[in-house]
Amino acid sequence: MRVLVPFDARDPKTRLAPALDADERRALAVAMLRDVLDALAATDADPEVLATDDVDCPAPVTVDDRSLTRAVNAALAEAAAPVAVVMADLALATPAALSRLFDADAEVVLAPGLGGGTNALVARHPDFRVDYHGCSYRDHREAAAAVGATVETVDSFRLAVDVDGRGDLAEVLVHTDGRAARRLRGAGFELVTDGRVTVSRRE
Amino acid sequence: MRVLVPFDARDPKTRLAPALDADERRALAVAMLRDVLDALAATDADPEVLATDDVDCPAPVTVDDRSLTRAVNAALAEAAAPVAVVMADLALATPAALSRLFDADAEVVLAPGLGGGTNALVARHPDFRVDYHGCSYRDHREAAAAVGATVETVDSFRLAVDVDGRGDLAEVLVHTDGRAARRLRGAGFELVTDGRVTVSRRE
Repeated sequence: MRVLVPFDARDPKTRLAPALDADERRALAVAMLRDVLDALAATDADPEVLATDDVDCPAPVTVDDRSLTRAVNAALAEAAAPVAVVMADLALATPAALSRLFDADAEVVLAPGLGGGTNALVARHPDFRVDYHGCSYRDHREAAAAVGATVETVDSFRLAVDVDGRGDLAEVLVHTDGRAARRLRGAGFELVTDGRVTVSRRE
Repeated sequence: MRVLVPFDARDPKTRLAPALDADERRALAVAMLRDVLDALAATDADPEVLATDDVDCPAPVTVDDRSLTRAVNAALAEAAAPVAVVMADLALATPAALSRLFDADAEVVLAPGLGGGTNALVARHPDFRVDYHGCSYRDHREAAAAVGATVETVDSFRLAVDVDGRGDLAEVLVHTDGRAARRLRGAGFELVTDGRVTVSRRE
């Protein structure tokens, strides 16, 4: 399966600004991208990174500085075969979770993210297009229905957690031991318990 | 499968205090409990509510005012057959997600919650005990290993979302149309888009 991995190479993860400076955010974003590519490498995926600028990673990189939605839709419009789109900040993604996504049969397969997003999808219908603005999980269900595509949802915690805010860092430390987790630990983050587990950072 | 559904009948959902008053929190908690019992009713589960005080719901209620951990461990110690424990605030739970939990083969099956919690589990090993304090997902993995039990994790977004804080209300509105969602809509909550989708409440 051809898999696009969109990546913001310029100013990634701005919502982590209270926790990490710009260089740290970029390094964490690249670490997560590489974790996602590692997980994809253990599936039958053929990944391509769709980045706003060049990035050093072990997959072909296409630079497209348009918005996420426009860049993905341009790729979908040109595609002659099924295409998956997997976000680059799914630090918890595993080969098993990704395989459930790829192996689902519907013409549009959606993996919802926390907060109404669409963290991963498979498009097998020629007329399906994305719109990542707003509550995209609902919008994508409606967009699939509007073109007559069958729709299926993959119920995965590991695909639902995209690392956007400080609270998400705890999920990385609890559930993974990849590059992103090691980078966070190296930067002084550790788990603290306060109802839900969160992170603290050593001074 | 025998399924315990622990429920705080006295002062539930205190972390929703900024969004809902005490009566509203209790009503939402009961609505979620009934949503969970509805989902369980469509599986092979035999549910019992383990509540800190009496509660009106369509399942047998055992009142046990000890802490969550103590009450569950007392039930596990007495059990002669496998027991599942499913939290009462899993408003997104579906029969399909719960069936994946019950059908997993390991002696201890864990469904992680956001923030390191354990939102649902199955205990088939006589010596496994719970401790819900702290990062219970990790602690339960270690506790299972310590008694020599095989462990499996169920990767489910719908079981990972427990409704604790205001941010979780958006998940209820995006992904469900049960009693809890109807109650939130009736109380004036609606989805708003601000990066991740969140909720606002009409004055």
